[in-house]
Amino acid sequence: MKFSFVSLFPNLIQFYFEDSILARARKKNLFKLAFFNPRDFTANSHCKVDDYKIGGGSGLLMQVEPLYNTLNFIQCNEHNPHFIFLTPNGKLFNQKDAKRLSKKDHIVFVCGRYEGIDERVVEIFANEVFSIGDFVLTGGELPALTLCDAILRNVDGVLGNADSLKEESFEDDLLEAPSFSKPFIFEKKIKYYTPSEFLKGNHAKIAGLKTTLAFCKTKFFRPDLFLEHERKK
Amino acid sequence: MKFSFVSLFPNLIQFYFEDSILARARKKNLFKLAFFNPRDFTANSHCKVDDYKIGGGSGLLMQVEPLYNTLNFIQCNEHNPHFIFLTPNGKLFNQKDAKRLSKKDHIVFVCGRYEGIDERVVEIFANEVFSIGDFVLTGGELPALTLCDAILRNVDGVLGNADSLKEESFEDDLLEAPSFSKPFIFEKKIKYYTPSEFLKGNHAKIAGLKTTLAFCKTKFFRPDLFLEHERKK
Repeated sequence: MKFSFVSLFPNLIQFYFEDSILARARKKNLFKLAFFNPRDFTANSHCKVDDYKIGGGSGLLMQVEPLYNTLNFIQCNEHNPHFIFLTPNGKLFNQKDAKRLSKKDHIVFVCGRYEGIDERVVEIFANEVFSIGDFVLTGGELPALTLCDAILRNVDGVLGNADSLKEESFEDDLLEAPSFSKPFIFEKKIKYYTPSEFLKGNHAKIAGLKTTLAFCKTKFFRPDLFLEHERKK
Repeated sequence: MKFSFVSLFPNLIQFYFEDSILARARKKNLFKLAFFNPRDFTANSHCKVDDYKIGGGSGLLMQVEPLYNTLNFIQCNEHNPHFIFLTPNGKLFNQKDAKRLSKKDHIVFVCGRYEGIDERVVEIFANEVFSIGDFVLTGGELPALTLCDAILRNVDGVLGNADSLKEESFEDDLLEAPSFSKPFIFEKKIKYYTPSEFLKGNHAKIAGLKTTLAFCKTKFFRPDLFLEHERKK
């Protein structure tokens, strides 16, 4: 599998693959990386990539031409690219997308900067347009890394323990139950216990308690998700 | 304003402040950064920070003690820390949180790894628990950076042009209208035009068209957000 990042600031992205679990997966050749900078695809002598908005409005926009040239180069020279644009104006990315996209050959993330991207580039190239949430960032680099990380976790061999994928949040529209580790009693000014049921080793009871805790947590933090869970029952 | 990151992998975070707009803001002393690694706060000789879950379940958990020691150190030595935990099991972060949190003195992001954090640490320290969306990542580092970026955009002086904050997505529960830049007509195999109204300079008509386009975009990509907008009218 291959991931390409189209960005004016590849420095903000590369580092993330140089430590921890994704660095190990990369060493094992479980995925490949490539970077394309629209600044290298400009036709003007100043390597200009941005300009004012037509029709007014504050801030600068990424122009159509350098991005078009970059994405056209990828389309002509790379095998089976799947273009994903990151903008706050897209569909919300979720765990089902992460699983689905982990089957693609080559995902190309297009990262906006400044006030965004000339809409015509999106219309010409986008296979999908994703947002990671209802907030505004300085660029598409963090959302692209976020999608890449979520997708890579679902690629065979990336996680040391494939079982980790089974028992986690958003399976079945519920958040994951709270978890505890040793020591059983953590004593500072007061004592902090783990739930006593967890210590007794009756796995059916533990599973029941975990489901109850997952219910409580989802109801409290994410009533929207809880309704979705109830609706599907 | 100060941001601290509590993480086992500070390398995955630091880089992000070394280029583009946030590097400039940091040089202007608009914010300070600090990093705390729980591995430096372990009491055991192997600097172990993780262990199996009590009650069973796959994968390893970040233990209570090293994290407790780290956060306790911050609480005792730093001015007015506001602890934010990043986990898929939290409240969804949004633009209103970004604006509100930009008024804090010191935000401490606590990044989980492996299968998450012993719930007792969350109970003892968390001021807020945030998620950035319904998907699972290899760690809390990207969500922490995402919150930090979204918050920093709202800190005075960080954006070159403060007007950029006014006219953007999620103001008024609508996505932003599409934007266009020069050239007016981009000609490849076929011609790609900007909307002709944008060229005529009648600002009332342009504003009207933008509102209509913002409506269409929100209805198509985010029917949930559109309902929220309609409800508030």
